[in-house]
Amino acid sequence: MILIKIGGSVFSDKRGEPENFDTETVMRIAGEIAEFYPNEEFIVVHGGGSFGHYHASEHAIREGLSGEWESDRRKKIGFSLTHQSMLRANASFIEVFLSQNLPAFSVSTSSIFLTERGEIVYADIEVIEKLLELDFIPILFGDVSVDVAQGIDILSGDQIMAYLTKMLKPKKVIFLMDVDGIYDGKPGEGSLIQELAREEVPALLERLHCTASGTDVTGGICNKLRKAHEMAYYSEVWFVNGKVPGRLSGAIRGDGFGTRLR
Amino acid sequence: MILIKIGGSVFSDKRGEPENFDTETVMRIAGEIAEFYPNEEFIVVHGGGSFGHYHASEHAIREGLSGEWESDRRKKIGFSLTHQSMLRANASFIEVFLSQNLPAFSVSTSSIFLTERGEIVYADIEVIEKLLELDFIPILFGDVSVDVAQGIDILSGDQIMAYLTKMLKPKKVIFLMDVDGIYDGKPGEGSLIQELAREEVPALLERLHCTASGTDVTGGICNKLRKAHEMAYYSEVWFVNGKVPGRLSGAIRGDGFGTRLR
Repeated sequence: MILIKIGGSVFSDKRGEPENFDTETVMRIAGEIAEFYPNEEFIVVHGGGSFGHYHASEHAIREGLSGEWESDRRKKIGFSLTHQSMLRANASFIEVFLSQNLPAFSVSTSSIFLTERGEIVYADIEVIEKLLELDFIPILFGDVSVDVAQGIDILSGDQIMAYLTKMLKPKKVIFLMDVDGIYDGKPGEGSLIQELAREEVPALLERLHCTASGTDVTGGICNKLRKAHEMAYYSEVWFVNGKVPGRLSGAIRGDGFGTRLR
Repeated sequence: MILIKIGGSVFSDKRGEPENFDTETVMRIAGEIAEFYPNEEFIVVHGGGSFGHYHASEHAIREGLSGEWESDRRKKIGFSLTHQSMLRANASFIEVFLSQNLPAFSVSTSSIFLTERGEIVYADIEVIEKLLELDFIPILFGDVSVDVAQGIDILSGDQIMAYLTKMLKPKKVIFLMDVDGIYDGKPGEGSLIQELAREEVPALLERLHCTASGTDVTGGICNKLRKAHEMAYYSEVWFVNGKVPGRLSGAIRGDGFGTRLR
């Protein structure tokens, strides 16, 4: 099984119109997956991009519930609106995959995961496993989450990736990004790292000034690298450019251009 | 907690345009719920109406997978299309409830239930219970299901109602229909039964010629009555007309017009 994350910046422009969706790019990505299906099994997880984000930040979902009834009621409505927005992104993915004759099926992240301050503490992946057995392609997404510590929170696509990698041990994990892979510096600056051993990750984190406190000047790369470091224990991890044709299929075949973490 | 089923015929006309949704009726129903929220907790389950049905019958989902690859591939695509259609119905419900300031939240039926020939054999209602604790109103729906016996099937809203009643023991279960309740005969004919004891159900089933084989000339009433007979063991069950203003709130208060099963 191959686990693929389609980053928000790959299919949507966060600075563009609300809920913009790059059908052309997703159609091409689905096409590259179709080259290998059904010989390979796939699970897809997508991020938010211009979906979800607006309601999530407008209602400060990450801060959880306050205990004040009227303000919490508005927050809960924002929580529900965020989920509906993510379902619209997901519906666009499903539509594109089905149009490529791929039996994709929507699994609602917030229906099966509970978090504690954004980290997964409970999950039920029974349906996902059964869908895989039947050769479906489950498509999950970064979503809101019911949180046992603060009532509500956000569950990121990257967290879902780490969890599914640990539980399902895919033979390959592929992150589609809007840059060519992991750079030894800010994306676009420094040089692209094409091969990286798991043992080299801590030193790289240090070179990138990734502190534990989470200040992250490299556009989320620190968190991604930390998660990848965990995932590399169970699976080979690739970071490739989802905007460039052929990069995904290269990673699936194993001879592609990008960063490969062994 | 009060468990409410909104029948497909209450919010949608099966013989009308595909995916027609009676916003006015649902707005009124949400308004009647809003009179009692948050003093009462609610879970809502809705049926399909003109949603879902088309793809489900077009692809003969109820018959399950055949084992023939190409035909199953088309069936799986129909299965996914059915779910997406039900998600659109559900999104309309969520929108109406949120507009009435009710913190409704969509829970995807097919993400948390597995069936065996349409009967629930596995369920994870952890998220639903947590949502209730936080005073959300979870909204589920009749949906497709991954089926351990035949690969795929349909999970009806009535099955979900029976399961949730057994597990969560609501103080009241209310079925909203497009008729006034249970008749001693075909709906519209015979006389409306206003009070019914659980012990009287088997005799009524016999009078309505409800056979075990499932021939059902009374528009689904036989199956509903059988399920209600099970549910009445755990909860009071009401059947009221969802098209008529005030009937739902009457059932919630306990002095309404319809059929009450003790």
